[in-house]
Amino acid sequence: MKKYISLIAVLLIAASLQSYAQTSASTNVIGREYPKVNPDNSVTVKISAPEAESVSLDLGKQYPMVKGADGTWEVTSEPQAPGFHYYSLRIDGVRVADPNSQLFYGSGWMSSGIEIPELCVDYYLEKDLPHGEVRMQRYWSELTQAWRICYIYVPAEYEQNPDKRYPVLYIMHGAGEDETGWSTQGKLDNIMDNLIDEGSAVPMIVVMDRGVAVIPTDKPAGRFNLFDFTDFEKVFVGEIIPMVDSHYRTIADRDHRAIAGLSLGGFQSFSLAIHNKNLFSYVGGFSGCGIPGSSNDLYPASLNDDFKLIFISTGRMESPQMYATVTNFHDVLVGNGVKHVFYQSPGTGHEWLTWRRSLYRFAPMLFK
Amino acid sequence: MKKYISLIAVLLIAASLQSYAQTSASTNVIGREYPKVNPDNSVTVKISAPEAESVSLDLGKQYPMVKGADGTWEVTSEPQAPGFHYYSLRIDGVRVADPNSQLFYGSGWMSSGIEIPELCVDYYLEKDLPHGEVRMQRYWSELTQAWRICYIYVPAEYEQNPDKRYPVLYIMHGAGEDETGWSTQGKLDNIMDNLIDEGSAVPMIVVMDRGVAVIPTDKPAGRFNLFDFTDFEKVFVGEIIPMVDSHYRTIADRDHRAIAGLSLGGFQSFSLAIHNKNLFSYVGGFSGCGIPGSSNDLYPASLNDDFKLIFISTGRMESPQMYATVTNFHDVLVGNGVKHVFYQSPGTGHEWLTWRRSLYRFAPMLFK
Repeated sequence: MKKYISLIAVLLIAASLQSYAQTSASTNVIGREYPKVNPDNSVTVKISAPEAESVSLDLGKQYPMVKGADGTWEVTSEPQAPGFHYYSLRIDGVRVADPNSQLFYGSGWMSSGIEIPELCVDYYLEKDLPHGEVRMQRYWSELTQAWRICYIYVPAEYEQNPDKRYPVLYIMHGAGEDETGWSTQGKLDNIMDNLIDEGSAVPMIVVMDRGVAVIPTDKPAGRFNLFDFTDFEKVFVGEIIPMVDSHYRTIADRDHRAIAGLSLGGFQSFSLAIHNKNLFSYVGGFSGCGIPGSSNDLYPASLNDDFKLIFISTGRMESPQMYATVTNFHDVLVGNGVKHVFYQSPGTGHEWLTWRRSLYRFAPMLFK
Repeated sequence: MKKYISLIAVLLIAASLQSYAQTSASTNVIGREYPKVNPDNSVTVKISAPEAESVSLDLGKQYPMVKGADGTWEVTSEPQAPGFHYYSLRIDGVRVADPNSQLFYGSGWMSSGIEIPELCVDYYLEKDLPHGEVRMQRYWSELTQAWRICYIYVPAEYEQNPDKRYPVLYIMHGAGEDETGWSTQGKLDNIMDNLIDEGSAVPMIVVMDRGVAVIPTDKPAGRFNLFDFTDFEKVFVGEIIPMVDSHYRTIADRDHRAIAGLSLGGFQSFSLAIHNKNLFSYVGGFSGCGIPGSSNDLYPASLNDDFKLIFISTGRMESPQMYATVTNFHDVLVGNGVKHVFYQSPGTGHEWLTWRRSLYRFAPMLFK
């Protein structure tokens, strides 16, 4: 019997490796052969550019591409971590998106991106179970005098329960990203669908709005400061939360409201939560946490009474500076006696797999 | 009195021209100055490419760009029609998206696009009135063995009326586009919000799915034929309509179901409607209509009993071949005594403004 089980195991592994041979990336434009993901998770990129003098791939680091006789340039990168990576091409010195890739708003432009499949992991993949929706809601912001679009995840059961009200997680993107980040790069709807279906997370609404707001009359002279959240907090508290509470069946109190974000959005989440303890009882910061430039006194042990959960996380492979930001804040919380969950994602840097994993761990701890 | 009215008119025109001076396009990535739309609706495009040998703009026609001393290339196009236009750059022979533009799935890739404002027209702009939502619904297609995403517009009142059921318009994109086209390039949600709010259209659900489906076992050997809708019709009838009727509060009968589409989607709409008269009672084709390669006998006068509305449209500036496709079909319908509405959009070609205008005229005729 054992022999058969071993045989089946070998066949299963072989089958999964087979489906894992060099394949066109799932993030390609439909029908495009390249980029391809190789069995070792390296990436092969190709582009036809007979007249170009130099072409290179920027995938975390620069890879000069080599021109073939037919004018096609090609390079294979080093093995990549699984998950989602932004990349770009440089053609005769101009940084452009790869025409073969779907594009994703990140780094302040529409960037090429590639998804590297992760073996034996399916918590962020589509599965055959009830699916929620991501809804795009336009609304007018009186404070900023601008139309905004909010992306809102509602759980699969939402429409079947027209009288039921739900708790709300507000989740923030990073610098240079926007309200589309969590549902595309982050695969948030799959993660929530899967967690809710298996009973790990309670059904909840998740709000993804843009983490930028400039109030014209409040605008100080001089350069825009990314880490000054004054205007954004006014819009968030005065307009975004009321819009959500009026358009969706929310439970509109602090016990049923959480906020979390990645990188810049992590700093924003802590700022919003600590400045508005009447509004939030759960707070999370993924690869970014605490209020920028704040003193350690801002995090006294009394936070244990203020929040039901403080969650911070980082990728183990983040740059020393990024890593230190989170671990230093962890040390402050420990030193001050503030209870919190600290998750470190193995093998990943400042990237979406760190944040998918963080959400996967954070969401089940909410509203229970 | 008349004098004052003239003065006010002059001031209003001056004010609108003022706001119409050279401005960064609304379709730019946030914060990017170029492309700019000039007062005469020409477009100025700029890109820094000090090392490039040649750079050109493709905006319907090719515009070679001129290199400045600082390595920035620039060109101003001829005046453009208002509305949305795809465009691309060619850098040393490689066709790429403009890094300064938001990108739109069209022509089979993620393309740059530019919105040219239209004076005195606001039916497709956001207004201060109740807004519906566009919902992204993932679902599994057993026939094609693939996950699909359907975009679904629900009217603003949908959530306020949990017991009310709604008629459904299925609307198809063109070749090289996908399920995102109508809500981004087409501004469908704004058009529907505005029409419904003013009472011109009845509240309805609008379904935007991908007009491509390949059933593996049915796939004939050889090249994929864009105009063979056999597989797609099976998926549409067998999976898409049932998915919509089970997930949304639809009125699931032919009297409350319409189908329309643009270009390739117009041909698909006529195919689906004529092959499934039990399912649809309204059909529209914008810049594409009739069943490809069909004989005139397929459109007898009895269609007057089969359909409550047959609507076809074209841009007056379409290529002679495109224009002839629609006008020839119009002649067939006239010759056979089939009642229909034939709308011709002034000043526009095979482009999104033709299709926004067509929807704006088609939607108010439905379900009344």
